[in-house]
Amino acid sequence: MKIELQDGERLDDLGIKGYQIIQKRDGFCFGMDAVLLSSFVKVKRGGKVLDLGTGTGILPILLEAKTPGRHFTGLEIQSEMARMAERSAAANGLEEKIEIVEGDITKASTIFSHDSFDVVTSNPPYMVDDHGLKNPNGAKAIARHEILCKFEDVSKAARVLLKHSGSLFLVHRSYRLAEILHCLREDGLEPKRIRFVYPYRDKESNIFLLEAVKGGRSRMKVEPPLIIYEKQGQYTKEIYEIYGWKPGEV
Amino acid sequence: MKIELQDGERLDDLGIKGYQIIQKRDGFCFGMDAVLLSSFVKVKRGGKVLDLGTGTGILPILLEAKTPGRHFTGLEIQSEMARMAERSAAANGLEEKIEIVEGDITKASTIFSHDSFDVVTSNPPYMVDDHGLKNPNGAKAIARHEILCKFEDVSKAARVLLKHSGSLFLVHRSYRLAEILHCLREDGLEPKRIRFVYPYRDKESNIFLLEAVKGGRSRMKVEPPLIIYEKQGQYTKEIYEIYGWKPGEV
Repeated sequence: MKIELQDGERLDDLGIKGYQIIQKRDGFCFGMDAVLLSSFVKVKRGGKVLDLGTGTGILPILLEAKTPGRHFTGLEIQSEMARMAERSAAANGLEEKIEIVEGDITKASTIFSHDSFDVVTSNPPYMVDDHGLKNPNGAKAIARHEILCKFEDVSKAARVLLKHSGSLFLVHRSYRLAEILHCLREDGLEPKRIRFVYPYRDKESNIFLLEAVKGGRSRMKVEPPLIIYEKQGQYTKEIYEIYGWKPGEV
Repeated sequence: MKIELQDGERLDDLGIKGYQIIQKRDGFCFGMDAVLLSSFVKVKRGGKVLDLGTGTGILPILLEAKTPGRHFTGLEIQSEMARMAERSAAANGLEEKIEIVEGDITKASTIFSHDSFDVVTSNPPYMVDDHGLKNPNGAKAIARHEILCKFEDVSKAARVLLKHSGSLFLVHRSYRLAEILHCLREDGLEPKRIRFVYPYRDKESNIFLLEAVKGGRSRMKVEPPLIIYEKQGQYTKEIYEIYGWKPGEV
């Protein structure tokens, strides 16, 4: 398929099923956290998936490639980003399976049917509003900071839109662990499965991957540590596997 | 010092400062979790420490050896166990620094002065009441199951007895992570520092070590993974260090 790029855009290969994604050269680009999340998410055959704050559309595209889900919706508040994600889906011939909806997470419960998704995913903005310098680039700042969306909004949207026993999958910063588990439990989304990501075996965890189940009972699985680098400049075997690289290729 | 053992008792060397501990041959013996917790706890010079459910007295004795704290109190509900812990403290010449009090965690707030401890520690019973077979041996069952004490009781006692900004340190089962962080936050004990223990690098975590601060603000540190075995039958370097062993000795 011939992909028409606009000014300042670039095309990146996703290394799976020949899929590609359009990104802004100087805008927010998807990172390793989205890729790790896509490998942590489980979608059953025929499942209906919603990604809250989809950005470039990376998660719906990777999940379409990696899972047997039937349909993937991405919600994105930034109009230009939403149109770009839509063009990426089309570029991969996925118009039928991926829908990008322009809209606000805080209004998600008025946009979609309640109790209608098997899976909700989110790679939400990380920084609380009083923490860290805002990035002067507007789209980057919105993707990285809780400017338009607080974690509570993600949690509340997932609670309303998930079917009973449906799963919310997210990636978030480890320093907000207690706060995020607390918020989810208050919203009836029981944390069930968590995996901490450590840059090196002897370093603190910076992010974690979490599955919470609507109406689940209280019992968690803390999965093996996910370690990124074996040593400086050399990824662990697991990271090579997640990216579908062979060690010789990088 | 000559230590008089009673029937069915044995004397174990703690590998630090020449300290020893009396344990029942067929009763509950302290495990690796107590040793890991003792290395995770931080006590400032002159600090006053309370161990809730002290059992054999292992934590007060190890903390006296490892930290510059001034005084260590162990609360133990089982009369025979409390007397044995007291004899262990005396056997190490620590009568002045370690006090064993016989009493119930649920009554702790009537036994000790409020806002009076710098540090509270606990290696509480792990199993929720409806989970797992009870051990037919009474003292073991009390030490392992929430028969006489629920986690909420530990949390509430710590909240009342800690000074403002004082720390609760505990070890608990990873499958109860969300529930325990939630309970502590509800009681105004903010989880600040956590370390997950993994038996092997590629296995799920079974226990975690946690520090929660009374009146702390919300921000957590997830410390590097603590891995027990490098491979079958061989501890990691860190475990050797925690136990004070040299690899050749074991």
